Amino acid sequence: MAEPASTSVLIIGGGPSGLLLSQLLHRQGIDSVVLERRSRDHVLSRIRAGVLEQGAADLLRTAGVGARMDREGLVHEGIEIAVGGRLHRLDLAALTGGKTVMVYGQTEVTADLYAARDAMDGVVIDAAEDVALHGLETDAPSASFLKDGARQTIRADFIIGCDGFHGVSRRSIPADRLSLFELVYPFGWLGLLADVPPAADELVYASHPDGFSLCSMRSPTRSRYYLQCPLDEKVADWDDDRFWETLCARLPEELAARVTRGPSIEKSIAPLRSFVAEPMRHGRLFLAGDAAHIVPPTGAKGLNLAASDIHYLSTALIDHYRNGDDEGLERYSERALARVWKAERFSWWMTSVLHSFPEKGAFAVRMQQAELEYLLSSPAAQASLAENYVGLPY
Amino acid sequence: MAEPASTSVLIIGGGPSGLLLSQLLHRQGIDSVVLERRSRDHVLSRIRAGVLEQGAADLLRTAGVGARMDREGLVHEGIEIAVGGRLHRLDLAALTGGKTVMVYGQTEVTADLYAARDAMDGVVIDAAEDVALHGLETDAPSASFLKDGARQTIRADFIIGCDGFHGVSRRSIPADRLSLFELVYPFGWLGLLADVPPAADELVYASHPDGFSLCSMRSPTRSRYYLQCPLDEKVADWDDDRFWETLCARLPEELAARVTRGPSIEKSIAPLRSFVAEPMRHGRLFLAGDAAHIVPPTGAKGLNLAASDIHYLSTALIDHYRNGDDEGLERYSERALARVWKAERFSWWMTSVLHSFPEKGAFAVRMQQAELEYLLSSPAAQASLAENYVGLPY
Repeated sequence: MAEPASTSVLIIGGGPSGLLLSQLLHRQGIDSVVLERRSRDHVLSRIRAGVLEQGAADLLRTAGVGARMDREGLVHEGIEIAVGGRLHRLDLAALTGGKTVMVYGQTEVTADLYAARDAMDGVVIDAAEDVALHGLETDAPSASFLKDGARQTIRADFIIGCDGFHGVSRRSIPADRLSLFELVYPFGWLGLLADVPPAADELVYASHPDGFSLCSMRSPTRSRYYLQCPLDEKVADWDDDRFWETLCARLPEELAARVTRGPSIEKSIAPLRSFVAEPMRHGRLFLAGDAAHIVPPTGAKGLNLAASDIHYLSTALIDHYRNGDDEGLERYSERALARVWKAERFSWWMTSVLHSFPEKGAFAVRMQQAELEYLLSSPAAQASLAENYVGLPY
Repeated sequence: MAEPASTSVLIIGGGPSGLLLSQLLHRQGIDSVVLERRSRDHVLSRIRAGVLEQGAADLLRTAGVGARMDREGLVHEGIEIAVGGRLHRLDLAALTGGKTVMVYGQTEVTADLYAARDAMDGVVIDAAEDVALHGLETDAPSASFLKDGARQTIRADFIIGCDGFHGVSRRSIPADRLSLFELVYPFGWLGLLADVPPAADELVYASHPDGFSLCSMRSPTRSRYYLQCPLDEKVADWDDDRFWETLCARLPEELAARVTRGPSIEKSIAPLRSFVAEPMRHGRLFLAGDAAHIVPPTGAKGLNLAASDIHYLSTALIDHYRNGDDEGLERYSERALARVWKAERFSWWMTSVLHSFPEKGAFAVRMQQAELEYLLSSPAAQASLAENYVGLPY
């Protein structure tokens, strides 16, 4: 067994939340260690969301990792919604007094963060298996893990759980100390990535009786499309032709005509889930991002919520170390959750209003249609959607 | 059997919709007969809603029955919403560019309409029992009924069904020609009317874990309060004391302290239902108001929707008789339903967000709380509520 090490802030999980926190702390002179269960190659190859709120983009800039995003990212001033075979544009910038979103893949964000951590000699331990957390309710918490066959322990002042929904952090909190809230939707998203120009300049959220679809992009030459599909669907049953045919059948004709088909780089099915664990702190353990909450991808809030958690948490830790002020740590869970629930509401609403729910009764289906028709007829309703889509204030 | 009579427009139902239509037609020189199943005294004694949208108030003025409303009605520029023991005012006028609502009881509207019909020698046949409609798919529809023991028949160009949810009109349409949409809520409203000054100057919609309550009024000296109650509740189990105690326990303390208690004049329980029948026309029969659609009372849309139906229908009939133009009649169902579904959505939403649903899961309860918290934090969300509350444009 190797010698135990120690750090100020031990971050469990080397995805964007953990790396971003590590980077923000580093720039304030606060040392941290990041523990990641998987290999770095695996982390960097994960395909995830691609829409950043202005607050998230600003936080990346604050962390000193915004340069490539600002060079290569696509600033979007609007989205389109397809209902009843017609496209309707929502001018996000006009509806929110100038706010926009940044289309820049989470994969790129993670790569930029790893490059920055490397440049600063940040300690990111990957392939750290069998992580276990200890002493969370004491002043000396620690994590042990297997690395290259040897068991190691790292002590810290604080442990931050950025290890996602399936990670060890939330599961290390006694069950009777957590309240869990969950909704599993009766469908998933089948995603396809292809090196073809996107069908539209902006994201298109398309409602259709056969199911929702989303036209999005990672760059002017890389497209990401999604189809609502039954939960028991198998990727193996979806060759590229079937995907493109199904997509085009669900889109307005004018848009379907602009879809460029091409071979898929990646194709996968993800279930849709709403989930919140309360509180987001247990003793010296603080949860952030997917470890504490999951949103369905409609509305692109997952990475953005993780970023707002990291905003509150980095500010709190900096106040603790720099100013001896623990108010931010004490109120972290409450502050983060207030914003989490608003984003959960928006993501649930966007999902509910745009997807087909096979088990819905006739009245509920009409309520959904009426909601979409009202939305497309009312600047006030559009302003409400827009302010949530670009991101509520931190 | 009396001699058959005839009229241009035969209106089934002597509530506010039927009388208003009769009055509007009369002022354009179009004759009509109103058939009412109950006695006039019964109709005039029914306690109903009390909030008029600007469009409905304008229509009453157009019909020449707005004078007392304008003298005695209360113009409200806002409403209050109670959440978490605190009152939040929504400034409807500020949120909608100056629109307001008029608090004036449906009982008073009906009385004014009867007075106007009487002054113009309008034919309103009350206590017309066992009404049956005939020949709706022909050019010569008619209604037969029992009056004072004798069967009579009245022929007409058109028959208008203003006879409410339980009336004969909708039931006279073959079942296979109608699509019905319905949601029955798992609770009712227990209403109490008392000659006491209202607790607040504006309507208060109060959310509480024990159930919704509404503080409203008919005049500065007559209050109308409602409590959400289980569907199997009995009025007999609610003496006045129990009502006032329950109400005050559900209101914010500052408001409960301003509730003046007094003996009830009326107390009743009404179930909450959303219902729409499509289309609103069958041959020469046109449906209006509750005969075609029901909304839960949250948001006060019932009478207002009836008024917008009567707006579309009176315009269409006037176009038919005065200009030989049938476009309005042909498109009546489509036009009326477009507005009906928007009001159904709003009433369903207001009901869903403000009431307690005992069977709801923990996540759904939190979504409801998040929706209220978002509403109270967002001017855009408030503007959306406000534009619906004051009434979407005709």
